[in-house]
Amino acid sequence: MPTQAFAVPGVRLGTARAAIRYPDRRDLVVIEAATGSNAAALFTRNAFCAAPVTVAREHLLRTMPRFLVVNTGNANAGTGVRGLADANATCAALARLAGCTPQQVLPFSTGVIGEPLPMDRVEAGLPAAFAALSPDGWEDAAHGILTTDTRIKLYSRRVDIAGHTITLTGMAKGAGMICPNLATMLAFLATDAALSPALLRGALEQAAATSFNAITVDGDTSTNDACVVLASGQSGLIIERDNADYRAFAAALKEACETLAQELIRDAEGATKFITLQIEQGRDVAECRQVGYTIAHSPLVKTAFFASDPNWGRIVAAIGRAGVPGLAIERVNLWLDDVCIVRGGGRADDYTEERGQAAMRRAEITVRVELGRGEAAARLWTSDLSHDYVRINADYRS
Amino acid sequence: MPTQAFAVPGVRLGTARAAIRYPDRRDLVVIEAATGSNAAALFTRNAFCAAPVTVAREHLLRTMPRFLVVNTGNANAGTGVRGLADANATCAALARLAGCTPQQVLPFSTGVIGEPLPMDRVEAGLPAAFAALSPDGWEDAAHGILTTDTRIKLYSRRVDIAGHTITLTGMAKGAGMICPNLATMLAFLATDAALSPALLRGALEQAAATSFNAITVDGDTSTNDACVVLASGQSGLIIERDNADYRAFAAALKEACETLAQELIRDAEGATKFITLQIEQGRDVAECRQVGYTIAHSPLVKTAFFASDPNWGRIVAAIGRAGVPGLAIERVNLWLDDVCIVRGGGRADDYTEERGQAAMRRAEITVRVELGRGEAAARLWTSDLSHDYVRINADYRS
Repeated sequence: MPTQAFAVPGVRLGTARAAIRYPDRRDLVVIEAATGSNAAALFTRNAFCAAPVTVAREHLLRTMPRFLVVNTGNANAGTGVRGLADANATCAALARLAGCTPQQVLPFSTGVIGEPLPMDRVEAGLPAAFAALSPDGWEDAAHGILTTDTRIKLYSRRVDIAGHTITLTGMAKGAGMICPNLATMLAFLATDAALSPALLRGALEQAAATSFNAITVDGDTSTNDACVVLASGQSGLIIERDNADYRAFAAALKEACETLAQELIRDAEGATKFITLQIEQGRDVAECRQVGYTIAHSPLVKTAFFASDPNWGRIVAAIGRAGVPGLAIERVNLWLDDVCIVRGGGRADDYTEERGQAAMRRAEITVRVELGRGEAAARLWTSDLSHDYVRINADYRS
Repeated sequence: MPTQAFAVPGVRLGTARAAIRYPDRRDLVVIEAATGSNAAALFTRNAFCAAPVTVAREHLLRTMPRFLVVNTGNANAGTGVRGLADANATCAALARLAGCTPQQVLPFSTGVIGEPLPMDRVEAGLPAAFAALSPDGWEDAAHGILTTDTRIKLYSRRVDIAGHTITLTGMAKGAGMICPNLATMLAFLATDAALSPALLRGALEQAAATSFNAITVDGDTSTNDACVVLASGQSGLIIERDNADYRAFAAALKEACETLAQELIRDAEGATKFITLQIEQGRDVAECRQVGYTIAHSPLVKTAFFASDPNWGRIVAAIGRAGVPGLAIERVNLWLDDVCIVRGGGRADDYTEERGQAAMRRAEITVRVELGRGEAAARLWTSDLSHDYVRINADYRS
């Protein structure tokens, strides 16, 4: 975590306390991108997507955004026609303040589902957030988008590309694209490089594939997940096509997204362990991810990690039920960090409970699976399942 | 639960304390089917199936079984070549006692994975289990197959078919075909009707589809799951083809399996709620089951049930991410018991938090989803996710 978030020329952020659900909490954030900026965004694939997701998707099809507006405390999801009207009204209210069109505003919400957005409070809070707009608003904004998170997630780095120093700063909240509590994964990144919307989207999709789309806490995809990258172009670096400059930028964006995604998992609800799942020798990436997610979503595997119990039979059973067609178990190998547990489908000769226990006690553990079927690989990150997870999720809303 | 398990003419059961893992615990069960009995069995679909599953499958292909032998305390899974040898040695030891061939014995194991079966104890315990064989051995056997279960699951009923009174008695253990702790779902049923292996298998598959294959605790399919039905034929009722008698028998077997399956869920690890998921108006049964399992496996939904919190957004989000192609959320309705929560994809006008809370407080709750796409339906049973689930599964083996 950087101690300092570098300002991104052309991008300003303002945060306010609008008391949307809780009093005296930063819960409303406005992000401004200077005229001429481009943007790309990815949204939840949940069929029950929230009203702001629907509106943001529509607006982004029409024009590039000048403003993003984010509220916490209320997801504006499962709110039907009224929810759409409220999301549109939020955009309209900010557009009036800013002198732009409502289509130039993208709305984002996170919080409880099924309750109407308190529009009076949102509209009352917008002028303060707008007035607070500042290039140095990242840290306040990173606080302003949190819900059950215990800490802010900020990433900031300067990169030299083709003689220009560009800045890439981003923030995220929520404990997964596939996330607990419907607390929603939101990520906002900005750079002062110049890229076309298409190039920006390509870089974002590529970065998300190995970051926000490679983490899971509990398999629950939120109705509100979104990830946005803004490119103001004010650094002077112009990336016009898929060349070395683009690849350097895409690599930087990927590192930013992977770092933020890891921060989300480290701060997952009740998490006591950070688990990397490295699935190798699959026929394709899809089956590697399938095996990884089956392990990552197994409550038995997750409770074993919580208990630091090298109960590897649970991992093996998850691999076995992952639905890989024709899996030859006699070719499967399994490691916990550097400890080989299963070789050729059976317990490794040199495995001892003590060695498994030593690996399991670590706070960060890599589970490596060799499927013995091909050359493809995939990496996922997940957390364990603790008493606190149940406590947090059983107590939420109460 | 019946107070009495009716003996099934032609079937005897014997139980012993072999100290396989714990001292002084009934942990070894032998079931005998008289000469001329038929049998059908279903096994786990987990690619990492246990050695006894492999051996039982092979034996069943060669001949009808005369004996089943079940041990708890050790799953004999993940044990490689030695595991297969041990499962075969178990069959051979019982065959020597009984004067049959090893192929006439089917082995079943449940317990910890990855440790070799203590063959000395198994072989030392077999004579006592064999000597205890009795038509009235059901209750002892029902105790003998338990692991983390808190109570026995027995079903027994007499049915009149075509002028004959047949008996159908069964027992089960474990908290799911998709089961926690790899504690394994095992079910053994017996009748004195006469059916061919093919008819018996047809009836068992049909019964399992809506019972043992329609329950889930945590999505973890054991490496050892098995379900067996024996038919001794000693009642005089002979069922020769798919006629009215067969349908009456199949209905009775289905009721037996559904009752046992429900008992498994009621005794699921840490369960405080019994949840029925009724998914209707799907295009086919597969998509209804997909939606049902997505809800049933959501830790967020399960913790909300544990907390008696009508946090219906979590259910809606699970429906939305279930992967139903082209799901039109504006046609989706959702009920908790008789309380309509979501109508046409949004909160029902007459829904109140109080009504949702009243439904959620019940110990048995039906979640009904109308997908608005067709005529298919599916029903699943599941449990909630409690502090005790984490405690039990984090402490297991310790």
